Amino acid sequence: MKVVCLDMEGVLTPEIWQHVAKRTQIKELNLTTRDVKDYRELMDRRLDICAAHDVTLEKIQAYITELDVFEGARDMIDWIRERYQLIILSDTFAEFADHFMKQLGRPSLFCHNISYNPATKRLEYSLRQDNAKAKAVAAMRSLNLRTCAAGDSYNDIHMLKEADVATFFRAPANIRGEFPQYGNLQAYDELKDFIHRSL
Amino acid sequence: MKVVCLDMEGVLTPEIWQHVAKRTQIKELNLTTRDVKDYRELMDRRLDICAAHDVTLEKIQAYITELDVFEGARDMIDWIRERYQLIILSDTFAEFADHFMKQLGRPSLFCHNISYNPATKRLEYSLRQDNAKAKAVAAMRSLNLRTCAAGDSYNDIHMLKEADVATFFRAPANIRGEFPQYGNLQAYDELKDFIHRSL
Repeated sequence: MKVVCLDMEGVLTPEIWQHVAKRTQIKELNLTTRDVKDYRELMDRRLDICAAHDVTLEKIQAYITELDVFEGARDMIDWIRERYQLIILSDTFAEFADHFMKQLGRPSLFCHNISYNPATKRLEYSLRQDNAKAKAVAAMRSLNLRTCAAGDSYNDIHMLKEADVATFFRAPANIRGEFPQYGNLQAYDELKDFIHRSL
Repeated sequence: MKVVCLDMEGVLTPEIWQHVAKRTQIKELNLTTRDVKDYRELMDRRLDICAAHDVTLEKIQAYITELDVFEGARDMIDWIRERYQLIILSDTFAEFADHFMKQLGRPSLFCHNISYNPATKRLEYSLRQDNAKAKAVAAMRSLNLRTCAAGDSYNDIHMLKEADVATFFRAPANIRGEFPQYGNLQAYDELKDFIHRSL
């Protein structure tokens, strides 16, 4: 059996925090894992900013519902699911991703959790584990599932390394330059072709 | 994050080999994992019988399309997928299960593979790994996913033991008697309630 492991933001959906930055007009929230490699450091900074500006989970969830998955994303994952298994591996939070998962027909998603603590007026996140994407791919391989991974960012590198076959998808130039071995696909048809040929 | 691991045959769908036995009128094909505990032994016997009676993969797949998933199964798994992650863990073959997966909205499925060798005129199966269901649950737990498992047969016992919480679903009396610790649920609403309360 074969399983495709896809990153969510940047591959299937817009970047959530960039939209929150735009809607709240808080420029500092534009930072992503493309800019800050340590995810805990990035999240701690984001949540400090949210606390300072009274950005609650409810507000973020409302902003997220204004977004749609990328054009063609649903068709592409339907194509994958008719042929292979699919697990979306993301460093987002289940409470953020739910809107997109509904649009995508509820594929399997392994990510983290976040909640709002009304007592402290702060968002609190819980990372399921460090290096979660790579560990998930390693777990799939331990089950004798052949794995294909695609992502676009620093937090995908270990997942790409762990997978049997891997590719960047719409990765920015600085990351592509650091890891040229993962190529860079731009269109869903190219990704389908890559999966079909290599998995 | 929380993941529900469900057996397929007997829990979501009819038993495939029992239907093949009925349609081919080969009584010996009625044996299931409920009767023969060693799955390789059971499959070897089934494939010897198929070879003797010229039962091909194409014929079996045609018989399977005559079957529907159990009434209420799709609604139940949709309910699960809105709230948790879902992986179907089955000792069936992807080439058999495809018809049911389509009816169920393509949930994730970890199982085995089978093919027909026209040269030998025999079906040939490839088990992804021994004790595959239990190993899949253990892999999920290693990812800090809290796991709930439900099954009905001998090949589910190790999976039930490995999971954080577990229950039989429509298990026959002889198996329930051997493993009374797993209770036995009969209706999907009971299973939903069990998942909601215990996971």
